Amino acid sequence: MTLAIRRLKASDADFNATLDQLLAWEGVSSHDVQQRVDDIIQQVRVQGDTAVLAYTQQFDRHPATDFNALVVSQQQLEAAFHSLPQARREALQAAADRVTAYHEHQRQGSWEYTEADGTLLGQQVVPLDRVGVYVPGGKAAYPSSVLMNVLPAKVAGVKEIIMVAPAPGGELNPLVLGAAWLCGVTRVFAIGGAQAVAALAYGTESVPPVDKIVGPGNIYVATAKRAVFGKVGIDMIAGPSEILVVGDGQTDPDWIAMDLFSQAEHDEDAQSILVSWDAAWLDQVEASINRLLPEMERADIIRTSLESRGALIQVASEAEALDMINRIAPEHLELSVADPKAWLPGIRHAGAIFMGRYTAEAVGDYCAGPNHVLPTSGTARFSSPLGVYDFQKRSSLIFCSAEGADTLGRIAGELADGESLTAHARSARYRVKR
Amino acid sequence: MTLAIRRLKASDADFNATLDQLLAWEGVSSHDVQQRVDDIIQQVRVQGDTAVLAYTQQFDRHPATDFNALVVSQQQLEAAFHSLPQARREALQAAADRVTAYHEHQRQGSWEYTEADGTLLGQQVVPLDRVGVYVPGGKAAYPSSVLMNVLPAKVAGVKEIIMVAPAPGGELNPLVLGAAWLCGVTRVFAIGGAQAVAALAYGTESVPPVDKIVGPGNIYVATAKRAVFGKVGIDMIAGPSEILVVGDGQTDPDWIAMDLFSQAEHDEDAQSILVSWDAAWLDQVEASINRLLPEMERADIIRTSLESRGALIQVASEAEALDMINRIAPEHLELSVADPKAWLPGIRHAGAIFMGRYTAEAVGDYCAGPNHVLPTSGTARFSSPLGVYDFQKRSSLIFCSAEGADTLGRIAGELADGESLTAHARSARYRVKR
Repeated sequence: MTLAIRRLKASDADFNATLDQLLAWEGVSSHDVQQRVDDIIQQVRVQGDTAVLAYTQQFDRHPATDFNALVVSQQQLEAAFHSLPQARREALQAAADRVTAYHEHQRQGSWEYTEADGTLLGQQVVPLDRVGVYVPGGKAAYPSSVLMNVLPAKVAGVKEIIMVAPAPGGELNPLVLGAAWLCGVTRVFAIGGAQAVAALAYGTESVPPVDKIVGPGNIYVATAKRAVFGKVGIDMIAGPSEILVVGDGQTDPDWIAMDLFSQAEHDEDAQSILVSWDAAWLDQVEASINRLLPEMERADIIRTSLESRGALIQVASEAEALDMINRIAPEHLELSVADPKAWLPGIRHAGAIFMGRYTAEAVGDYCAGPNHVLPTSGTARFSSPLGVYDFQKRSSLIFCSAEGADTLGRIAGELADGESLTAHARSARYRVKR
Repeated sequence: MTLAIRRLKASDADFNATLDQLLAWEGVSSHDVQQRVDDIIQQVRVQGDTAVLAYTQQFDRHPATDFNALVVSQQQLEAAFHSLPQARREALQAAADRVTAYHEHQRQGSWEYTEADGTLLGQQVVPLDRVGVYVPGGKAAYPSSVLMNVLPAKVAGVKEIIMVAPAPGGELNPLVLGAAWLCGVTRVFAIGGAQAVAALAYGTESVPPVDKIVGPGNIYVATAKRAVFGKVGIDMIAGPSEILVVGDGQTDPDWIAMDLFSQAEHDEDAQSILVSWDAAWLDQVEASINRLLPEMERADIIRTSLESRGALIQVASEAEALDMINRIAPEHLELSVADPKAWLPGIRHAGAIFMGRYTAEAVGDYCAGPNHVLPTSGTARFSSPLGVYDFQKRSSLIFCSAEGADTLGRIAGELADGESLTAHARSARYRVKR
């Protein structure tokens, strides 16, 4: 059965409305979910381990009868790593090395400067103390997520990394545990859902409270993260994954079809969009899609995703393709064109940019080096890939000389008078020379 | 009447519990507030300007009968600036210059590196397109807030800055408008509350949708910011302002009393804590507090704040004072000691550090250079002062050479097999050499 992927032309009268509809995604939780999550958080705050254990028995059908059974030991992690086939261990290690090397470029240092009158100004940069990493269970249990969330924290210098991962029916994914061992995660708990987020945010008898929670999760996890934001830091709340491929018509259509599939196979809500000014090549890619689809293990998911949220869009020119990029602000942007560097100055919004015909988005998911945790659903307009900067924080430094206190005290006094804050004014003026 | 400020000793049996209670602050909104805010956001999304105008008439008692009356023109801003006394204009200008100079040190640039096989990796850093700045109305209408929220965005290179400020009864503060003109704000609307946040997040006929909303506000504003987080970026949700002063007993007690007052005069929930290992000096500061309080314009607010949330804490040693700093993670930390630099390596959590006897916290509020928007209520454990980095964002760059695609394609293929993502594996392996 031919796959019915949308073919759009940017010149169509209703194109803008159609594209808006296609891109629309409301990640908002229902009041019902919010209420249930608030209840779970409240119970965990009051009852600690007892509540977390009860929810884990209920939601994950976990056979544990004692919270200790939810603690995963370092020995288990190490054994899981060594149980993996050698090729997989080596691939994990190679990916970890590359991700670490890339992220080391992001580490920021403290800085300061001294003004002519001796006043010192600067910023002290230090890592967070303790971070929680949420790793989903079930079909989305990805070892690559462990690497991508944990390694930037390690590079930042975070001392304690607490990982939580639900174990449906008591089962944990050995690849996930092995990746945790490889990355040097401090402690692992086999818990998930809003109860795990609450435990990390507020702490329980067993789970130490963390300063920031990162990692993807379902609607309950996302709602819980939003609820505890402020008590702890959180990363972005992720929507479905998406890719925008821009092609000049010279890349093998099979490669492009597979790149679109690789996004679509994540889940039915994933979005794959291809843009080109070469209509004949769009036809070829569509033919490749139809020829290759039956060969795919996840053909049903890919079909649903491409039919409900995918599109092949014909534009008039490269300039129109660039406009499309900035309008969509894609999580993943693949520039399958002859000179991708020439496009960079015009690109304002994209999570990650995969440049040239040889750069499959999939290498970015695993091992190229940059993070695969990226802003989704157009949030690349204001946010960035997860990085070392998310695990560092800054303190401003101000050290006035007697001379500097005189100059600054006069200015501050004048402005404090304007705001009718007279203690501010007087506190500043005490340091002004008489 | 003597002011009854708490005197605590860190060695007291119940000290930890007392301090926990003193620091406790729950910024969570009630379900009632959440519901009203959700309704307001929904109305603004559906009815745009009409809804914003109606709420502004209702909540701000604004006389406007047409949305255009809520638009503040550049002419009005410029006239407001020139209406200010010369000394105040000059002080504003001096503060703006210093804040700009400091923040220029925070600007981050793009970077890239090329590996031996020709693969390029990097990160492209660009400013946000359009930012919304919320400036509270009424008694907390501070021109310094305009400078501190707008200038980092300007330094980052943000092209459009949309300011909203409620005008209770139709009245706007000329200092706020003058500061907006000085900072080069693009457009100003005399709107506030959840309706202004909703207008900025979703856009209306008149208000353009922004990519990020920053600036302080009341519980409705904070709740609305939390609700639109994800649709747009937001800064931290601020709690009451607080200061921790650590003194070695050698600073003039009047200076310290006034520094504590300058925090306490903000509002009744503000918190001022003084820590020292010199009990006699704590007595002297307490005497200064009682002597100076009657002279203060905001004596009632200061009294309430100090009595309900303030404390003078005696510790046994410098080391214990340092522990106290890291435990409290203060928004403002004043190190009124002989050698404040020696303390820095031990300080893990503080929004801004005011070093030495000459550095009044008040100069940081206005003109020292660093931002006065700082993490409150212990959130310095995981967050940073507002800065240029909040108005820049990053895109990862990956440009594989044919050789690099071969190496990375093999690793990615192996890991994708492990995650049963076969389209990922095949997409990567298409680029592996045969």
